[in-house]
Amino acid sequence: MLGKCMENVRTRVPLVHNITNYVTVNDVANVLLACGGSPIMSDEPEDVEEITSICGGLNINIGTLNKRSIEGMFAAGKKANELNHVVLLDPVGAGASSLRTNTAVKIMEEIRLNVIRGNISEIKTLALGSSTTKGVDADVADAVTEENLDAMISFVREFSERTGSIVAVTGAIDLVSDGKVCYVIRNGRPEMSKITGTGCQLSGMMTAFLVANPENQTEAAAAAVCAMGLAGEIGWSRMQEGDGNSTYRNRIIDAIFHMDGETLEKGANYEVR
Amino acid sequence: MLGKCMENVRTRVPLVHNITNYVTVNDVANVLLACGGSPIMSDEPEDVEEITSICGGLNINIGTLNKRSIEGMFAAGKKANELNHVVLLDPVGAGASSLRTNTAVKIMEEIRLNVIRGNISEIKTLALGSSTTKGVDADVADAVTEENLDAMISFVREFSERTGSIVAVTGAIDLVSDGKVCYVIRNGRPEMSKITGTGCQLSGMMTAFLVANPENQTEAAAAAVCAMGLAGEIGWSRMQEGDGNSTYRNRIIDAIFHMDGETLEKGANYEVR
Amino acid sequence: MLGKCMENVRTRVPLVHNITNYVTVNDVANVLLACGGSPIMSDEPEDVEEITSICGGLNINIGTLNKRSIEGMFAAGKKANELNHVVLLDPVGAGASSLRTNTAVKIMEEIRLNVIRGNISEIKTLALGSSTTKGVDADVADAVTEENLDAMISFVREFSERTGSIVAVTGAIDLVSDGKVCYVIRNGRPEMSKITGTGCQLSGMMTAFLVANPENQTEAAAAAVCAMGLAGEIGWSRMQEGDGNSTYRNRIIDAIFHMDGETLEKGANYEVR
Repeated sequence: MLGKCMENVRTRVPLVHNITNYVTVNDVANVLLACGGSPIMSDEPEDVEEITSICGGLNINIGTLNKRSIEGMFAAGKKANELNHVVLLDPVGAGASSLRTNTAVKIMEEIRLNVIRGNISEIKTLALGSSTTKGVDADVADAVTEENLDAMISFVREFSERTGSIVAVTGAIDLVSDGKVCYVIRNGRPEMSKITGTGCQLSGMMTAFLVANPENQTEAAAAAVCAMGLAGEIGWSRMQEGDGNSTYRNRIIDAIFHMDGETLEKGANYEVR
Repeated sequence: MLGKCMENVRTRVPLVHNITNYVTVNDVANVLLACGGSPIMSDEPEDVEEITSICGGLNINIGTLNKRSIEGMFAAGKKANELNHVVLLDPVGAGASSLRTNTAVKIMEEIRLNVIRGNISEIKTLALGSSTTKGVDADVADAVTEENLDAMISFVREFSERTGSIVAVTGAIDLVSDGKVCYVIRNGRPEMSKITGTGCQLSGMMTAFLVANPENQTEAAAAAVCAMGLAGEIGWSRMQEGDGNSTYRNRIIDAIFHMDGETLEKGANYEVR
Repeated sequence: MLGKCMENVRTRVPLVHNITNYVTVNDVANVLLACGGSPIMSDEPEDVEEITSICGGLNINIGTLNKRSIEGMFAAGKKANELNHVVLLDPVGAGASSLRTNTAVKIMEEIRLNVIRGNISEIKTLALGSSTTKGVDADVADAVTEENLDAMISFVREFSERTGSIVAVTGAIDLVSDGKVCYVIRNGRPEMSKITGTGCQLSGMMTAFLVANPENQTEAAAAAVCAMGLAGEIGWSRMQEGDGNSTYRNRIIDAIFHMDGETLEKGANYEVR
């Protein structure tokens, strides 16, 4: 029951530690508050271990990484592992530079990750060592489509099996797999790609969903993806003439703010394969 | 006259130097512009002394502190003290980690502060060395309520007397004391806690209010608290069906943008004890 | 044809590398998406060369510079020069501190800049070594007015000729010169100065316009200025009672999102001198 996963977030108010980029960090904080979680941000290596200790989950996003914050990611990640906290990696721009690719790979090697969530170009980079990444957006050549769906499901399932992490690939069609089942999700709107940070927001929110649903992590990850996509649909339906991507950004977070378990349950558009 | 305090901000256009966190910094800048002030941000130790010199006040917020920005906080604070500028400390997350607590305490020891503004958990940490801080939000166990109001007023008044700083504790009921009088303020809406950074915004705006009202600093601090709370009420009254925390954030800043002295005077809900 | 310049952005989807301040970075990203470009942010010296290599242009904004990001600006700028990419400098706060002035001057000396875009106080600082800069906003004593227009045009033209860069000075009247022609632009609204970052947004967008219009760089720079000003007018016309600077910010980006070449062509208010 995806709806129950969302209700658990509202009831349990998970505290999420975010080491994330400075581009979209405000929206990540607001969407965490909107879904019922509580955000805290800290990237200073001397600060992160204590901060992550009082949280339930850690969201690592490498969108504007620097040497200091990379050190913070490893310190926080290791402490979170020690405490058996949920850890999510969002490998923003993996494939676009060596520093990003190598940092993401090293995090995968040294930190036990509950979830890896990215666009298909980023995930391909991590899984295959190559992709056609174009900056921080997925390349169209990499897209998950109805035509290549079966192959993509196998790819994601295998990568999940190999890493031991839930893998969430988001795009026009979203895939969430734990190595066994694979959720195929068709919520969302293409216009969401015209807003910076919907992926970053999803990563923050997904971390909260996993913290609040320790016994149903795969379902919780899928629920977060459905919630974000559904919010994109609800937000779009409230757009008025002249509204553009900036207003749309607000309306999506607003839709998360009002979403309850029943709305999510009814609006989620997915199949389990 | 609280209204006059706000009018002075619009007339005098105080320039405020902010060393603040990257989560809510954009909203801090926009609320400063909305109230009639002018914001500038700088945290590089080599840059802060000159920047603070051309300003009238300094707003230090430790929300995403790092070693470099901590150095900047001390350099800017000492220069601001030298020039007799207004200095405000917002000890975000004091109590949540040693680095945050120790940095806030050291700032209190080494920099003369006109105001310390935080939630009750943060202020208790600084005053008593302990609290039940839960991340960056106040813990419910610490809340100022009608039941414990007298004791809380005494606590805030004593802490103000001991430190020589105006102390502003914000929450469901806000307290502002200079060691003698204590403003008890009941403006605001509970939904404001679902937006990241209303506290940070208040700290930026309060710094501007103090700069523009050098002879009525306590009243200026109380006026800023009332203005923020009243903006929360006005913003909420303009919410339409489906609007959530992201739209509410805009509406609060919008309400500050339109607030004049008369509106503040009429809408302020406070008593002086 | 200014309209054609905008259409080229939408068709060619230029990828722009931004080393910009953390105050307005989210709006820079969203306005780049709104106009049809694609943003990427990176300031870590080890990361910037590869990131800028996959982009078409580089937008350097010194609004919250620090020692690490300054190093990143030079590394990225030199690599971009090597690759003949478009490079724009936004010297935020030049004149307000030595670090800002010196960094901007050194960037001008060591990096070939296609455009320098700032307010009149910042440009005067770079051209004359002095101004009456007040923080990050232009001082009224420096303003371009109908009265001093001829002198200002000469000043901007000469500075452009001397530097070899297109110079764009924005304010109530905007000037864009390549040393030969000078566009005098009268789009925009005074209320835009009550939003943080409209200048930063313009710099990001202007970089995209130049990348998409390699053979008409001066016209592309002017088109970006007209587009931003026109968006300010369209956004303002959509304001409702009670809306303030925060909502206005959204409406301006929304207006860019919907602007096509024809709208820009019709709404642009400029003369070429």
